[in-house]
Amino acid sequence: MDWETLARELAVPSDAKIVLLVLDGLGGLPVDGRTELETARKPNLDALAARGACGLTTPVLPGITPGSGPAHLALFGYDPLRTQFGRGILEALGSGVEVGPEDLVARGNFATLKAGLVSDRRAGRLATEKNARLCQKINAAIPSQRDIETRLYPGKEHRFVARFRGEGLSDRLSDADPQKEGKPRVPASPLAPGADRAAAIVNGYMDAVTDLLKDEPVANTILVRGFSKFPSIPSMAEIYRIRPAAIANYPMYKGLARLLGMTVIDVGAETSALFDALDKRYKDFDFFYIHYKKTDAAGEDGNFAAKVAAIEEIDALLPRLTALGPDVLVVTADHSTPAVLKGHSWHPNPFLLVSRFALPDEVTRFSERDCGRGSLGRFPALQVMPLMLAAGLKLKKFGA
Amino acid sequence: MDWETLARELAVPSDAKIVLLVLDGLGGLPVDGRTELETARKPNLDALAARGACGLTTPVLPGITPGSGPAHLALFGYDPLRTQFGRGILEALGSGVEVGPEDLVARGNFATLKAGLVSDRRAGRLATEKNARLCQKINAAIPSQRDIETRLYPGKEHRFVARFRGEGLSDRLSDADPQKEGKPRVPASPLAPGADRAAAIVNGYMDAVTDLLKDEPVANTILVRGFSKFPSIPSMAEIYRIRPAAIANYPMYKGLARLLGMTVIDVGAETSALFDALDKRYKDFDFFYIHYKKTDAAGEDGNFAAKVAAIEEIDALLPRLTALGPDVLVVTADHSTPAVLKGHSWHPNPFLLVSRFALPDEVTRFSERDCGRGSLGRFPALQVMPLMLAAGLKLKKFGA
Repeated sequence: MDWETLARELAVPSDAKIVLLVLDGLGGLPVDGRTELETARKPNLDALAARGACGLTTPVLPGITPGSGPAHLALFGYDPLRTQFGRGILEALGSGVEVGPEDLVARGNFATLKAGLVSDRRAGRLATEKNARLCQKINAAIPSQRDIETRLYPGKEHRFVARFRGEGLSDRLSDADPQKEGKPRVPASPLAPGADRAAAIVNGYMDAVTDLLKDEPVANTILVRGFSKFPSIPSMAEIYRIRPAAIANYPMYKGLARLLGMTVIDVGAETSALFDALDKRYKDFDFFYIHYKKTDAAGEDGNFAAKVAAIEEIDALLPRLTALGPDVLVVTADHSTPAVLKGHSWHPNPFLLVSRFALPDEVTRFSERDCGRGSLGRFPALQVMPLMLAAGLKLKKFGA
Repeated sequence: MDWETLARELAVPSDAKIVLLVLDGLGGLPVDGRTELETARKPNLDALAARGACGLTTPVLPGITPGSGPAHLALFGYDPLRTQFGRGILEALGSGVEVGPEDLVARGNFATLKAGLVSDRRAGRLATEKNARLCQKINAAIPSQRDIETRLYPGKEHRFVARFRGEGLSDRLSDADPQKEGKPRVPASPLAPGADRAAAIVNGYMDAVTDLLKDEPVANTILVRGFSKFPSIPSMAEIYRIRPAAIANYPMYKGLARLLGMTVIDVGAETSALFDALDKRYKDFDFFYIHYKKTDAAGEDGNFAAKVAAIEEIDALLPRLTALGPDVLVVTADHSTPAVLKGHSWHPNPFLLVSRFALPDEVTRFSERDCGRGSLGRFPALQVMPLMLAAGLKLKKFGA
């Protein structure tokens, strides 16, 4: 019997409020002997660690570096090895792009092509306004490819979502993105029988766009990846009998939340906006997923100091969260993003759970190494949801 | 390959004596900073912890609160997620009720009905003698329902086992028990096609009994739950090649032991009776399961002090057990029953294993938090049986 089946059998509604604060990419690696978390001054996180039970979660499997999609799925109790879908669909849903059951979507970047090689995968982090103008130009000039309606939806900086609307398009395509700079463009390749037509349409479209942009100084090509169609997945409300809300600013996380049936509470980019939204909607839901992006963004940039600052920034605002007195409060991450790696990593995530029914351990600082000595030990992220629901008395007894 | 298959392949008889002492519901939560175990004075348990290897076991899955059945199954090496049966069958077998392959059994309570609502689910914890008289009266007045023979077997206080004897009765019925006080009686509902007839018979019987008891001052209705038929399950002797005995006082645990093919050694309610039985039968078996109920009972009553006292009571008698010098001694629990929760919980169980072949760790006190630092770490209760058998040299090498 798997967790979903068990949860459907055992979940019972309760009044308890659960808050899951995800500090994206929180875990790190040492510079001069200390990780970002060990370096940061974060009295509020440390106080929570001292009050609660701590541990380390494994996002997917030891040694496996997860993308944001699988890492978040695990936190919400969906087995990331069984529930997979392209990041394109998440980005599209999060951006508010209307996606129908036959649509093929993907996420993309404007990029710079020089002498036949991709010299900058982000086109110098293009201005968001310029991105919007380019998408408009492309949509006007290239409204379709063969009988398929094509459309780009601008995102932030160099990012966009591409939608291919028409019947019979497979999403079993490799990324049309060399992933690294200094390499030539690569076409999407079919990964399954029947995906040839989708590959031809995508590649034809990308060639047409590159031709259209040939005189642009920086954004003179596009890269597209994460092809996906609309997946069907049971909602958190259905499985856990909770009323879940997501407080997030970035499209991808809002998209994932929508896919799992959470109500998405849109917020601005300021960190305080997360807590404004929580205050305002606290009475309306019993499960809150709050997503904080700055820790991951700084890690991806390889900026150790910025990541330390991002930790200190969220820490300073935590009293706004604890003042609400949630019955269950978890602070953790989806995956690690050590600044020294400039990207996601396979390392486990620091985890703390504060509740009347969690046995406090001896951990008094919230860090990778301190949490490693916590009473919860090391456990799969897939078990975060059962632990939170249990502490909220939202799971009845299994068997007599 | 699952554990059962592996055990059948590797198990070999040996002279080693294994004792598994289960302190039911042992784990707790703090009151004024200390759990029941941390509060109790228990020099003998602490000495065993110091001599042995310690850890924490997860009964079923993190966050899942197990009933006694699944929790014990895991301890005996039977996957609780794959092996399920109603508690009624356990209670019936434990009470010595003869159960045939076509019988439907359930466990029940006498209860108090006032103004159409169940005001006391336990009829004021009815005197056991009164219970016996009422069952006799009911069995005489209502010997059958339609063509089905009906019979109540009195247990302790307000408890009884109900047996419905006849062909084609399904056990896929919901509990005929509102579970909470202040609610009206609820009928058993069919949970599967073909269970309608069983539901109608059970509900008709319960109405007839309630009518018969209408002038009783306290015990004027019955509640019935845990409908089950006789399951078939391979015995511990067959899988592990051991000669197992159970020393227990409560029906449910004796029932489970019988279901797994253990020889049940009946004992009285005094704690010393457990050790009298062990002394007397020590030469006859090589695996002893000893069940101590008082820790759980006190936890269920929310009585922290009584639970502390129950721990101290068993601790004081432990020299009688260690004097026998078992080759393998495990002290653990089936599940936690924190007094603050007044019921089972999902928290892991303290575990200690003493044997010539167990590596002692640094743990010197037997408690939830101390065991959390033990060398065995946190592991599924399903691995307790392999660890005990291994330490008793009752498992041969896997592969060449």
